[in-house]
Order: sequence, then C-alpha cells, then structure tokens
Amino acid sequence: MTAPNDFRFAELGDLNIPYNRCQLWLESFSDDITYFKMTKAVTTVDLSNTASAYYAPATVAPAGKVIHVAGQPGNLKDGSIPSDYESQIHLALLNLRRIIVAAGSSIENIVKLNLYIVNYDAANRKHTRHIQRFLRGHRPAITLLPVPQLAVPSWLFEVDAIIARPETSLPPILSNVNQTGDVVIIGAGLAGLTAAHDLLRSGLSCVILEARDRVGGKTWSAPLNGGGTIDLGAAWINDTNQSKVYALAKRFGAEVIEQNTQGNAVLEVINGKCTPFAYGELPNFDETTRQNLAQIRDMCEADCQALDTCRPDDKLLDSLTFEAYLRFRGASEVALATATVWTRAMLGQDPRDISALYFLNYCKSGGGLLQMRSDRKHGGQYLRIRQGTQAFSLGLASSLPEGIVKLCAPVHSVVQSGDQSIKVQAGGAVYAARKVITTVPSPALKSIAFHPKLPPAKQVWAESTTYGYYTKAMMEFRSPFWEKKGFCGLAQSFIGPASVVRETCSLEDRKYVLTCFMSGDPGRDWAALSTPERESSLLKQLEKLFAASNLQKEFIQMTTYEWVHDEWAGWGCPCTALTPGVIANLGGDTLRESCGNLHFAGTETAGEWKGYMEGAVRSGERAAAEVIKGLQAGISARL
Amino acid sequence: MTAPNDFRFAELGDLNIPYNRCQLWLESFSDDITYFKMTKAVTTVDLSNTASAYYAPATVAPAGKVIHVAGQPGNLKDGSIPSDYESQIHLALLNLRRIIVAAGSSIENIVKLNLYIVNYDAANRKHTRHIQRFLRGHRPAITLLPVPQLAVPSWLFEVDAIIARPETSLPPILSNVNQTGDVVIIGAGLAGLTAAHDLLRSGLSCVILEARDRVGGKTWSAPLNGGGTIDLGAAWINDTNQSKVYALAKRFGAEVIEQNTQGNAVLEVINGKCTPFAYGELPNFDETTRQNLAQIRDMCEADCQALDTCRPDDKLLDSLTFEAYLRFRGASEVALATATVWTRAMLGQDPRDISALYFLNYCKSGGGLLQMRSDRKHGGQYLRIRQGTQAFSLGLASSLPEGIVKLCAPVHSVVQSGDQSIKVQAGGAVYAARKVITTVPSPALKSIAFHPKLPPAKQVWAESTTYGYYTKAMMEFRSPFWEKKGFCGLAQSFIGPASVVRETCSLEDRKYVLTCFMSGDPGRDWAALSTPERESSLLKQLEKLFAASNLQKEFIQMTTYEWVHDEWAGWGCPCTALTPGVIANLGGDTLRESCGNLHFAGTETAGEWKGYMEGAVRSGERAAAEVIKGLQAGISARL
Ligand SMILES: Cc1cc2nc3c(=O)[nH]c(=O)nc-3n(C[C@H](O)[C@H](O)[C@H](O)COP(=O)(O)OP(=O)(O)OC[C@H]3O[C@@H](n4cnc5c(N)ncnc54)[C@H](O)[C@@H]3O)c2cc1C
Ligand SMILES: Cc1cc2nc3c(=O)[nH]c(=O)nc-3n(C[C@H](O)[C@H](O)[C@H](O)COP(=O)(O)OP(=O)(O)OC[C@H]3O[C@@H](n4cnc5c(N)ncnc54)[C@H](O)[C@@H]3O)c2cc1C
Repeated sequence: MTAPNDFRFAELGDLNIPYNRCQLWLESFSDDITYFKMTKAVTTVDLSNTASAYYAPATVAPAGKVIHVAGQPGNLKDGSIPSDYESQIHLALLNLRRIIVAAGSSIENIVKLNLYIVNYDAANRKHTRHIQRFLRGHRPAITLLPVPQLAVPSWLFEVDAIIARPETSLPPILSNVNQTGDVVIIGAGLAGLTAAHDLLRSGLSCVILEARDRVGGKTWSAPLNGGGTIDLGAAWINDTNQSKVYALAKRFGAEVIEQNTQGNAVLEVINGKCTPFAYGELPNFDETTRQNLAQIRDMCEADCQALDTCRPDDKLLDSLTFEAYLRFRGASEVALATATVWTRAMLGQDPRDISALYFLNYCKSGGGLLQMRSDRKHGGQYLRIRQGTQAFSLGLASSLPEGIVKLCAPVHSVVQSGDQSIKVQAGGAVYAARKVITTVPSPALKSIAFHPKLPPAKQVWAESTTYGYYTKAMMEFRSPFWEKKGFCGLAQSFIGPASVVRETCSLEDRKYVLTCFMSGDPGRDWAALSTPERESSLLKQLEKLFAASNLQKEFIQMTTYEWVHDEWAGWGCPCTALTPGVIANLGGDTLRESCGNLHFAGTETAGEWKGYMEGAVRSGERAAAEVIKGLQAGISARL
Repeated sequence: MTAPNDFRFAELGDLNIPYNRCQLWLESFSDDITYFKMTKAVTTVDLSNTASAYYAPATVAPAGKVIHVAGQPGNLKDGSIPSDYESQIHLALLNLRRIIVAAGSSIENIVKLNLYIVNYDAANRKHTRHIQRFLRGHRPAITLLPVPQLAVPSWLFEVDAIIARPETSLPPILSNVNQTGDVVIIGAGLAGLTAAHDLLRSGLSCVILEARDRVGGKTWSAPLNGGGTIDLGAAWINDTNQSKVYALAKRFGAEVIEQNTQGNAVLEVINGKCTPFAYGELPNFDETTRQNLAQIRDMCEADCQALDTCRPDDKLLDSLTFEAYLRFRGASEVALATATVWTRAMLGQDPRDISALYFLNYCKSGGGLLQMRSDRKHGGQYLRIRQGTQAFSLGLASSLPEGIVKLCAPVHSVVQSGDQSIKVQAGGAVYAARKVITTVPSPALKSIAFHPKLPPAKQVWAESTTYGYYTKAMMEFRSPFWEKKGFCGLAQSFIGPASVVRETCSLEDRKYVLTCFMSGDPGRDWAALSTPERESSLLKQLEKLFAASNLQKEFIQMTTYEWVHDEWAGWGCPCTALTPGVIANLGGDTLRESCGNLHFAGTETAGEWKGYMEGAVRSGERAAAEVIKGLQAGISARL
C-alpha cells in the first residue's frame, strides 16, 4: 500500500495548528460512538466569575446511583506510607482512582471532592497541580479543609469523594462483519507495522487499522523548503544497542547523521548565567556542588541499574515522587535542577509529577541514565536520519501487500464475545478476527470502548499514565552560527523556555537547525505564547546560550507540532509516565498482559528502550510472537 | 400440647454449633419475607485488601431518595451534654439513629459517615468500638476528621451522614386467614406461656406462635450422660422475691438445689494473682482500695435504690456510660475492674458500652446491686433446679389445651388494619385476632415486618438495645476438686477468660460442674478460639483460680451454647442493655407501651427482675392483663 503523502507535506508550512484530515469524516459516526462510551453525566454550575477555576462552584449529579468514597490517605496497598507530602497526594489520588474504577465509574463523573490537608501552606498550594492533573479538565465541586491531623499521625493528605455512576451500557451489536481474518492490529506506528510483518511471515492474515491519514504514528518527518527533512516526532537512534531500529534504517536505505558533540556544551543556571563546558564533563560548579551532583547522578545510575527492566519492583521507590527521592537522598538545589532537566528532556515531566521507580526504570530500559542521555556511540541521541525517521514506517508499510493498512480508520470499539471471535469497529466498518493487537498509546485507549471492559488493574494503569509537556521547536538558521563560537549546539537550561537544545543540521542539505526541547513547566509557559512571542523568546534564549546577538537576522523559520493536541498520540508525547504507587499496587506487567484475545503492544509496553522507536519495534515483535503462539496452540488444540 | 423433645437432647453432645431444625422449612418462605422487609440497597465497593475493615472504601447508593444528616453531637434532647467523650459518642449515634428512623430508613442504608473528633488520639481510637457496634456489620464509607473544636466548645464528637432511603413497600395482602381467635401470642417462652394461661383463664381464646421446635426460649435444659441436667440458658431463682417463678417450680414439682457459698471465693486480679477471700467479704486489697471499692459499691447501691423500677428517670445518669459514671465518682482501677465483673456477669457488657442509668435500673429491678449479685437467700443466684429451668415452660405448655402452641411457626409479619383485626403471618399460615402479644426479645423484632411500622420511639429503642457477649461454659469434672481445697466454687476474674465461675453441681446426680461465665471482651477473645483451645484455656484458668494442677485428668466435658448465633433470641443473651440517652430521650416506658392492638411482653419489659425468668413471667401477666382489660372494655363499649 502507499498513502499519497505529498499533499500533507504541502501544508507543513504552518504546523502549529493541530491538524486532522479525518475530522469531518469522523463526526458522522459520533452518535454511534457516544452511545457506547461511558457518557459524562455530571454537569457543572458556574457563576459569572468562576468558569476559569479548575473546580466548579457546584455540580449537578444525574439521577441514578451515587458512589460515596471513604477518606483515602496516600498509602500503598500494604499500608505503608511515604513521609513526603506530594508523594502522599499522588498515592491518595491513585487510591481514589482504584475505587472509582472498581465502582464502575470514571473521573469525569466526580461530583464532589473534599481535600483534607495537614500543615497546609496557603502560600504554596502544592496539591492544586496534582489534583488538576488528576482531573484532566473535569471540574467537580471541591472543598479544601486544612486540618491539624488526620486519623493516622503520618497522614498528611486525605481525599474523599462523591461520584455519579452512569448506567452501564450494553455492548454494541456488531453484526455486519465487513472483513474477517486472523488478526486485527490497531495502529500503524512502528509497533503495529512490525507486528504485521511478523504475522504475515508466520502465515497469518492481518489488517492494520490506523486512525490517521498516514503511517508512522509518533514518527513524522516533514520536508523543508529546498531539501532536507525535519522530524516532528522521533529523531535519534543508535547502531549498537538499538539494533532493531538500526536494522530498519539499513533495510530502507536511510542515511545516518552522527550527532555533533565536538566543542562546548553550555549550561544556563537559575540566575540566567550561561557557562560553557566540555561535552561529557560536569559543568564547573563549586566543588561541593559538583560532588553532590556527581553523587546524585551516580546514585541514580546505580539505583536504576539494580532494577529489573521488565518488572521493576521496589515499593519504597514507587511510593515516592522522583523529587522526594532526590531530596531524601540529599540532592542540592543544583542537583535537583539538573535532574529536572533530565526528566524534562526525556519525558517532558517535572520530578514531582512522576514516580521515582518509574523514572529509574525508564532509564534502565535505555541501558541506564548515562547511556540514555548520551549523544555519543551507544547513547540515545547518537544518530539521526537524513530522510527522517518516518522513512522506517513508510518503508515497512509499502513492503506490505496491498490492502493491509487501512488509513483513516479510527477504532471505536472492541468487542470480545464468548464465541472466540473478537470484533473491531473502525468508522463504519466491522472487522472480525481471532486476535487483536492494540498498539495505541495508553492514554488513547480512552477513545476506544472495550467490551467487556478492560480488567480493573489495566484500566487504572491506563488512567494513571500521564504525559508531561513536550514539544520540539525546530529553529532553522542561515548558518550554524554556534559552531563558529566553539559550541556543539548542545545546551541545557534550568529556567527555559527551552530545557535542552540540540543541533539537528543536515550539512548535505545545507540545513542548519537547532532543535529546542520545550518541556515541563517552562515549556507550558512558552506554549501559552503567540507564535511570534514563542519565536522571539526562543531566539533571545539562544542568543544568551551561544553568546550570539541579533539572531533574528540568521533566523529562517520555526517548525513545531503540538502532540499535546493529538488525540491519536493520546494527547502528548514522547512517552507516558506513571505517578507513584501504580507499579507497586498493580504490578509491573499490568499494561503488557494480554486479556482474552486482546494483546498489547506499543513502546510503553517494551522492556528495553521503552518510549523509544526501538522499544516500539520490540513490543511489536513480542506481541506478534504472543499471538502466533496463541493461535498455533489453538490450532493444535482444535486438531 | 407436647413437643417430642427427646430427639433434641440426643444431639446436645456438641452444642457449640447453633442449630435450628426449622431452617430448611423456613427457606421455602424466604421470598415472601424479603419482599416485605426493608431491603438493603447500599452496596459496598472493595479493593483486594479492604474487605476486612469495618468500613468500606466506598459504597454505592441506589438511585432514589437520599437523606442528608446534619452534624449530630452527643447531647440529650434537652441539649445537655456529658463531658465524657465516649458517652458523647453514644449519644451522637443515638441522635443519628433517631433521625434515620424518623426519615424512614435504617442503619443498613447508611452510605457515608463523617466523624469529627476533638482531642483525637490515634493511639487510642475509642470511637471504633462504638461505631462498629452501632453499624452491626454494615460497612458504609467513613471519613474521620480530627478537629481542634466543634460548633459548641463542649462537643467532643460529631457525626454526619448520608443515607439511602429505600422505597417503602406495600403491606402484604394476608387474605387467606387460616385461624381466627381473640389473641395471638408470639413466642412460647415464659412470658408467652404465662400470658396464654392468664388469657384462657379469663375466657379468651389464644394461640402461641413459636419459631423454635421447642418451648422455653432462653431457658433450655439438656440431660447429661448418666443423669442430671445442665441449663444452657437460665439456671438460678430464689424463693422469696422471685415468687412467681418459684411458684412455677413448686407447681411442676421441680427440686431446688441451694447454691454453695460455704468456703472461700477467689479473685484473680489484673496481674493474674489469685487470692481467696471469704464469701460475702471484700477481697483483701490494701485499705485505700478496699475503702474506694466499698464506697463505689455503696454509691451504686444507693443510686440504684433511688430509681423508680418501672420508669427510671435521671437525665444525668442516662447521659453517661456506666464507666464514665464510675470514673466521675472517683472509682479506682480496682473498683472499675470490679464493676466490670458486675456488668460482664450480669449482662455480658463492659461498662463503657452501656448507660449508667440502664445498669443501675437493671440492678434496682432485681432489688438492688447487692441482692441481684447475691448467691444467698433473697439473692439472684440462690437456688437452682435439678431438672433444669426449662421444666417450667414444659410444664406450662403441657398444661395448655392441645393446639394452642404452634412450634416451628416463626412470625414474619404483623399487619394491623383499620378493621380492628390484626393479622399475623407465620410461615405459610395467617392468624387473625383482636389482639397480639409479642414476647420476642427486642433485637429479634427486626425479623418481623410490622405494618404500619412500629412507632419511631419504639423502633429507636429496639434498634438501640444491644447484647454483650455472654456464654456459659459448663465444665464437668469427675469430682468437686475445689471443695477439697476449701473453695465454694465462686471465682471472679479481672482478666478472664472466665469473668465469673460458679459451682453448678447436682450431688444427687453425682454431677460436678463449674459453670464459667464467658463474657464481655475476654469472652469474645475466648469465643474466637477452637473448641480444644477454649477448653484448655479454661482449664488453665481454673487450675490457677483453685490452686489445682493437672485438671485435664479430672475433666470430663465442656458444654456451651452460643446464644450470640441464635436468631430467635435476637442474637444474644441473657438480656439486652441500652446505650446512654435512650431512656432519657424516649422515656422509660417506650418498649412496654402497646400500640394499637399490639402488646409487648418479654422479660425486657418487666419492672421487677427485668432480664430474669421472674421478670418474664411478670411481663406475661402484665401484658395478659392489658389485653383482657382492653378486650373487655371493647365488649362493654359495644354493648
Ligand atoms: C517529539 C517526539 C520526539 C521523540 N524522540 C524520539 C527519539 O529521538 N528517539 C526515539 O527512539 N523515539 C523518540 N520518540 C518516541 C517514538 O516516536 C515512539 O516511541 C514510537 O514512535 C512509538 O511507536 P508505537 O508504534 O509504539 O506508537 P505510535 O507511533 O504512537 O503508533 C500508534 C498508532 O496508533 C494509532 N492510533 C491511536 N488510536 C487509534 C485508534 N483508536 N484507532 C486506530 N489507530 C489508532 C495512532 O494514530 C498511531 O499511528 C519521540 C516521540 C516524539 C513525539
Ligand atoms: C445463658 C443464660 C443464662 C441466664 N441465667 C438466668 C438465671 O440464672 N436466672 C434467671 O432468672 N434468668 C436467667 N436468664 C434469663 C432468662 O432466661 C430470660 O429472662 C427468660 O427466659 C426470658 O423469657 P421470655 O419469655 O421473656 O423470652 P424468651 O425466653 O426469649 O422467649 C421468647 C420466645 O419468642 C420466640 N421468638 C422469637 N422470635 C420469634 C418470631 N419471629 N416468631 C415466633 N417466635 C419467636 C423465641 O424462640 C422464644 O421462644 C438467662 C438467660 C441465658 C440465655
């Protein structure tokens, strides 16, 4: 199959507006969809001045069943509780989520929350951030009560709730099957395309249903005027421990560009001072700070190496945010700011928003913190692809037989019935298969109605995954001005707007680009600006970082794509993260486990290089192997 | 009538398992029953690790009406409030109960409780016990909030609640009346049988509907191998102030055995030390302790004598638990432990669980604390019955005309309609009468659906009565080993497992038995053991108490019956008690008052010797007199 990709590129000039060709077509099916999905039944009441608050002055619960939740403290399933306040908030909200799922409802049906806070500091309302992220835009009524203590002295936060419980709807009747085969794959990213190849090779038939009008998912490469390509999604690979994705590069004749690490890197600290340092060295802080930084870095490296890649298991680490972990281990403010650059550049997250265990395991999956962060041989950012990484998916897709990949085919429902067949509805068509592999990012699972529902633990996991903020802003210049000043183009900043900058030039194409990683809180602030403001604030930062002036003259254009508005990515990128407690309470395998004839792939389910293209490919191989084994076992059993 | 009682005795060898011959037969009617009773509509949500908690992490309220209860402090109807925390908890829960009943719901429909506690002590969570007893196994969601103060400075505890209100069901249509008469009596215990005799004597017709396959209710006598009898229920009477029951003994030729008080009693104190003392004296504590003990005892005696037997009225006393009353009056720990032996031995209760007024009035009804506790002439434990006390009921029953007592006839509903007739459904049969006398213990009223509902005050009373834990363990030995050492067999213990031990030998039958009163908290702990553990822990205690060794060699068998599992006793014995505030808020007559053509008897409604067989007989006489008067008045009015 080949998708006519040309028309898309023509529009990439202004990529700031999220764009979905399938939109109109989709809406004609919306009736079908909402009748089946859990409907949001709680409505908010607002006064003239309340609409901008993250909670509502009142909500109206629908007639029907109502769930009343007992006060939930921030403890793990075994009762253990971290001493850190923010970690407790995360765990309490997770407990609330577990109950909501167990009771058959959802966040959108929360009518009322009561928050009980010990040692409340009105000047530092740490809870707001986490409650807001938990609510994902839903606005229940909330009452906050500072209290002197809670039922157990170590409890610092407790939440109780009232939640509407919508009637459970019947499964849709998917009678007119349009196509039957062995396997339906949802998603034509690297995981889905890889799985398809493996299935076909083993003699099974399959179809890939892809919501977008293109293949590649979170790899997306756009041509630049006058030649060259930029990657709006994934860009870097390496040729050693990322063997699967490197094999794809070779197979489809992609040219690799080695990341430039010659010359100085530069660090911008809290007060805005920028200091160059040799790539690979520690920035020149005072001796105490350097020692603390080295010690924290080495501790993280050691702690991550100690974890099992696939099934991380450490209750203590999972009960803490990464920030609490760092603070408990004596991280200085500089070490904390440095670690913040790590989480921002790798996940778009701030350390207080994610589980220490999750982050350390994420590092481990890429071979460790140091390797994952390295721009050199064996590192996560060693090689780029001149044609763009979407070439891998385009290559995989075009080497599949005609008719396997269905574009503009967003899956709305997956119905497993007793009769061994599993039906998938995408748009107006229904596909019946013996197995289904979904490769959709976990937050995008919400857009699919599963019947029966996914197991509670999987629902809780999928609901608990969060994206940070992460946008690459590709700044194209007339010349590599930074090189002339002895910089390799790598910069890190404690204050932003860009947290990390990397050179992404293609000398062959005479394209000189600095890719700015806009992420975490500074990224969010920057995203709130208009396009001209975004550009000028970035140019100003680049001038400071690379001791340049009047960059406006060098500047050609900025290209960005807001994955945060992309439904099919699950409203974010590059990979989800977990808040504390999810792994400890649910088990590290939860997302990956198949249920019935439904199998789970996608880079989040990977062991090695989770969150990366390499992980995506490996997850596709793993899921295909599961399916092949399952179907073959089935066959011999039936003989 | 005569019930073939022989087959029952054959099975008494292992009485530890509650046993109900009518069970199977009953179940065939269960549909009828549940359609009429208030159904439990609130469901609990549990996570994998929460099911053992006494509250649920969440509950689901059914669609329908919902009751919201304002914060209830622990005050009496007139606003007065005790300064004692636990007393306040009782009163607040009573207020909550009054509201629930007034709003037409029940404890089982509580969806959520919020507890607000001043001076909260996480290490000593006194509220748990009382909330748990209040909930009787129902598990709402609960949030506990320690607070610095409440609306009124003296309030230490407040509770608010959300409660589902089930639709009120229609009365059952009891059209096919199987039998008509003047009076239906519910229950063939001493109260019901006595009432029947009086009614017949006055020329009225009646029928007794009895749920069990035997008469006698809480009197139940079992033969021992090789002769002699033990009483699984009531055992002691006297021949002076218990004139009614003594008359029965004489009438049916029962032989009485005088309780042995010759020789030493023994006391086991907190540290496990056992000291003999002469029966009737105070144990030999130090002088201060003896003085305090005597003073507290005399104060209780004086306070109880000051009360009206039938209509006790003392707001202050009723606002306090018996424990708070004792502490306010300066009881030492030894005095408190002694008083705990009283409440345990008399009611199976601990002093913190019951109203001071209720306990003192209970004493008064038996002639005072000292008389009630006495094993000598005029005392509550002066005489036993060689044939067992069930002989009274068996005698009464067999002297009634054939067909009056219907066994295995559990009453499910009582319907009073405008046409002066009152219908009673028992199993498949319907009886119509002009009057009904119920003698069922108040907690067992729950098993009967009344239409119209009982008046709110009566419902609240019936819901507020509680049983403690109370089981007699009859330990049979080859010889009265304790007598040889100069003991009379009476022992008291502050620590248990047995709180009190009394000799219950029958020398004529060569049966040597120590009856151990397993009650209150130590009794509950003991009840959790296996039968061999129960036996050996009791033998160990008896060895200590009576300075014996190797009792296993003397030991023949242990006989117990768990009234706590007996539905027709109302799941407990020997008599219910009340928490603080019930009498003060509702009035002392509440349980006893007739409503419409429904009259209330049973030992709980007695003035004198409430809780005893004597009280049961008197209550039967009183209710019969009410009915006779009412029906005769009716006749003359119609003339
Ligand atoms: C900005 C950015 C930078 C990154 N940088 C790097 C990097 O340098 N190196 C690296 O290795 N990785 C990087 N990544 C991550 C990499 O892109 C992903 O790990 C990888 O592409 C994921 O592949 P996948 O097949 O698991 O998921 P996806 O690529 O997300 O594929 C899932 C597919 O499912 C489709 N889908 C979703 N919902 C439905 C539905 N309901 N019905 C039908 N189809 C549906 C989606 O449209 C999508 O095509 C980056 C990602 C981003 C966004
Ligand atoms: C272990 C124990 C020790 C005791 N010790 C003594 C003692 O030493 N001295 C003393 O005087 N008293 C003692 N008592 C108390 C004495 O037994 C009671 O006070 C007395 O027997 C109560 O008689 P009653 O008729 O009021 O109630 P009950 O004997 O309880 O009779 C009520 C009857 O109603 C029946 N019933 C219940 N519900 C229904 C229904 N829905 N339909 C039909 N029938 C129903 C029951 O089966 C029962 O037969 C003791 C009790 C126990 C259990």
